[in-house]
Amino acid sequence: MRVKDKQYRTIWMDKTIIRLINQMLLPHKFEIVDVKKLQELKLAINNMTIRGAGAIGAAGAFGIAQAAMLSNDKDFFDNLTDAATQLRKTRPTAQNLFTGIDFVLNALKKESKVSLARETAVRRANLYADMDASACKKIGEFGAGLIKDNAKVSTHCNAGWLAFVDWGSALSPVYYAVKEQNKNLFVYVDETRPRCQGANLTAWELVNENIPHLIIADNVTGALMYQKKIDIVFVGADRIARNGDIANKIGTYSSAVVAHDNNIPFYVAAPVSTIDANCPSGDNIPIEERDENEILYVQGKDDAGAISRVRISPEGSHALNIGFDVTPAKYITGIITEMGIYPASYDGVTQILSKVKKV
Amino acid sequence: MRVKDKQYRTIWMDKTIIRLINQMLLPHKFEIVDVKKLQELKLAINNMTIRGAGAIGAAGAFGIAQAAMLSNDKDFFDNLTDAATQLRKTRPTAQNLFTGIDFVLNALKKESKVSLARETAVRRANLYADMDASACKKIGEFGAGLIKDNAKVSTHCNAGWLAFVDWGSALSPVYYAVKEQNKNLFVYVDETRPRCQGANLTAWELVNENIPHLIIADNVTGALMYQKKIDIVFVGADRIARNGDIANKIGTYSSAVVAHDNNIPFYVAAPVSTIDANCPSGDNIPIEERDENEILYVQGKDDAGAISRVRISPEGSHALNIGFDVTPAKYITGIITEMGIYPASYDGVTQILSKVKKV
Repeated sequence: MRVKDKQYRTIWMDKTIIRLINQMLLPHKFEIVDVKKLQELKLAINNMTIRGAGAIGAAGAFGIAQAAMLSNDKDFFDNLTDAATQLRKTRPTAQNLFTGIDFVLNALKKESKVSLARETAVRRANLYADMDASACKKIGEFGAGLIKDNAKVSTHCNAGWLAFVDWGSALSPVYYAVKEQNKNLFVYVDETRPRCQGANLTAWELVNENIPHLIIADNVTGALMYQKKIDIVFVGADRIARNGDIANKIGTYSSAVVAHDNNIPFYVAAPVSTIDANCPSGDNIPIEERDENEILYVQGKDDAGAISRVRISPEGSHALNIGFDVTPAKYITGIITEMGIYPASYDGVTQILSKVKKV
Repeated sequence: MRVKDKQYRTIWMDKTIIRLINQMLLPHKFEIVDVKKLQELKLAINNMTIRGAGAIGAAGAFGIAQAAMLSNDKDFFDNLTDAATQLRKTRPTAQNLFTGIDFVLNALKKESKVSLARETAVRRANLYADMDASACKKIGEFGAGLIKDNAKVSTHCNAGWLAFVDWGSALSPVYYAVKEQNKNLFVYVDETRPRCQGANLTAWELVNENIPHLIIADNVTGALMYQKKIDIVFVGADRIARNGDIANKIGTYSSAVVAHDNNIPFYVAAPVSTIDANCPSGDNIPIEERDENEILYVQGKDDAGAISRVRISPEGSHALNIGFDVTPAKYITGIITEMGIYPASYDGVTQILSKVKKV
């Protein structure tokens, strides 16, 4: 990823400190946060200082590694189990969080010596982050093959590099097509209320990558599909069920239904770490409900340059803030993973899982 | 309509002054604006101090009446034609604006004496406003028959009393069912970015009318339909074409497609003044594009209580701000007018028009 012409990752570890890009302040202020302990990491995940399926997966992995480095020898394994339990509770929907935690934790089970377990934890967390970045690049390579030169792409929320360690999922095909294949692309960025990850984050990524785009209200996507102004849709996923149903940022479902009605290809891009092999269908995916104030207020930069919020609703009204929705497999043209592009179906997911090598 | 337990209309005339509720400041501040001349009225319509199909229709009618009262005798008819031309340019999509202007203007053609024409203009403008209010109440009566007790209703944007002279279109069945039939209803209010007429205006109306509701992000409507949490949808219309296609606030189309996919009844409520008999289909309806800053910024009340705005997008990004979309007739369960409920089709619109008596 390129931020003001410097290369970054969304999250990384430096000795015992987890460093991450503060996504609460973007696009108005670029800041790296130092996370020094579990309590801070839990808050950062929960309040979305770091967010995005892959990024919180890596946060989970680094969280276990940090707990391993900071724990005393005596209660080492109990402390790690406890850290994992606490991290798992921060957000319920994205499978990658659990995958990341388990990727580190399960590797420690065979270590009897604490000092070796500490090394393993750090090595595994870094490996998880590297694998996330390389899986996302591979998604870009496969997905770019679907995009014609001069295509108009629709995406939802932010599934770019900020949502992963690097490259992103839904935006990775766009980046790959532009950077590696010199295609000219145009992206419609829907703002993605309530947290506006589209207007705040996706648009900011595209500014940094110098890719032409326009921000639209979430309400506009369907009309553009009807007007045939969108050629292809790429969205991410927070969890992929065994039957090919997916959970993703609220609004994905409507976009999929309208795309389907207009015969516009609708692809879900996500690394294998997003698949929950134990989840039979979308109906079984836990859906996060968040604080109503995310709806009742909007955060942004005021005219004096400070980050502040305004209330956009009457006193006396309350809000329902559902974070994700389920898109049934039948609306999904294909699932793009680092293993290739497969149908959104039980068989398709079986094929993806059969390609995965245990690391 | 009830504002803090006092009865109001959205717009009315008091001698030569047009008085209207300032919809730019709601829900944070309730204020009546005095419009003293054409220039002010044009601005008020354009910047949405007054908005909503029926309300700007009445504004058009009162605008001609005001011009008649303020014009000298010599250039009277030229001045009125000029006022009409200027008012017609303020907003392009809502048919009611043109209907309201013509309702007054056409009645003056038979008047040869300016003094009589002045009286006629004022009488016709007041008649137009009264007819709008009574048509809307009648829409409520017809529409309320479609709503079961304890129903969960979805609406979009604001098509309540603020959008008309009184009662509203899409919300009128809700008000009628609650006030006149003692039904218990629940309303999901989508915020309706970019101008947030749902969160700002519809929610405020429902607070004043004491009707249970929750505000949701526009992205949530589809998910609630999929979860069968919405029993019926009522939306308004800014223009109804001859074949039953309609234009309404951007986002209506997606809501209609997803409702259709989930077998949820989707009704368009609008007075006959919204029908454009000369417009063959939705493809022929002019669609307003508004300033990109409505997307790049959000207006609300800051923590100090002042109405201000925050930027929610990066410097360097631009936005596309389409105000309306077209919903093809095939997604519409029925059109509710003051003449009754008819199919959204060429035949349905023909039946509606055949019932209309010339006033």
